[in-house]
Amino acid sequence: MRIPILRLGRILLTSVQTDLTDDDAGQLQAEVLQLFHRDVADGLVLDISGLDVVDSYMARLLNETARMVRMMGGEVVLTGMHPMVALTLVEMGQEIIGIQTAIDLEAGVARLREVIHARDKRTTQGRTTP
Amino acid sequence: MRIPILRLGRILLTSVQTDLTDDDAGQLQAEVLQLFHRDVADGLVLDISGLDVVDSYMARLLNETARMVRMMGGEVVLTGMHPMVALTLVEMGQEIIGIQTAIDLEAGVARLREVIHARDKRTTQGRTTP
Repeated sequence: MRIPILRLGRILLTSVQTDLTDDDAGQLQAEVLQLFHRDVADGLVLDISGLDVVDSYMARLLNETARMVRMMGGEVVLTGMHPMVALTLVEMGQEIIGIQTAIDLEAGVARLREVIHARDKRTTQGRTTP
Repeated sequence: MRIPILRLGRILLTSVQTDLTDDDAGQLQAEVLQLFHRDVADGLVLDISGLDVVDSYMARLLNETARMVRMMGGEVVLTGMHPMVALTLVEMGQEIIGIQTAIDLEAGVARLREVIHARDKRTTQGRTTP
């Protein structure tokens, strides 16, 4: 099952509304990175309100995706995390360090715009690799 | 295949990125109407950039969904229509009369906000049934 990725100007939105197979998650990661590679976006809001549980594979994938996007000059905000998912991630020691989070998609888009704005102010050359 | 519906504040976003079966389209319509019934949204941006072709069933469904949403007090903006889809709709006589359109999702969200704002100005009681 392909998860649609929506483009709102230079922000990508994607919402995981059901539990994902490992293949689905891998495909989503590949598509997101492809879009950043094609330079169609400055950032990604990844809504995971549909994830009731995460396993270590998914946690690693979330972490890695965010890190890769930032390597490519983008920013990621994670939204809609269930309490149980937060609990699991912390217990696994897989806290999503370095990923901005927000309560829902609207807050996530606002947060991402702030992050991108702050980043663009820091550099005059546009994109910067952290 | 379930099409995710994203909520950006009181705006619903949904993007059809592959050709739909009749069942998928029917399910999407039912979910959209359910969300308006639960009063979680003022409007819907329906992105159909993934539709390369439409048949008469899909055309009727798009028309009907927009009309139903408006009956329930919401507004719809259709975005990303392919030239071939526009051509087919006009040839079938299924012009999407009464649906606002916009070139892409970002323009669609802006358009929808204008429409909702204009509507709310016309009535002091909030929602109005056309």
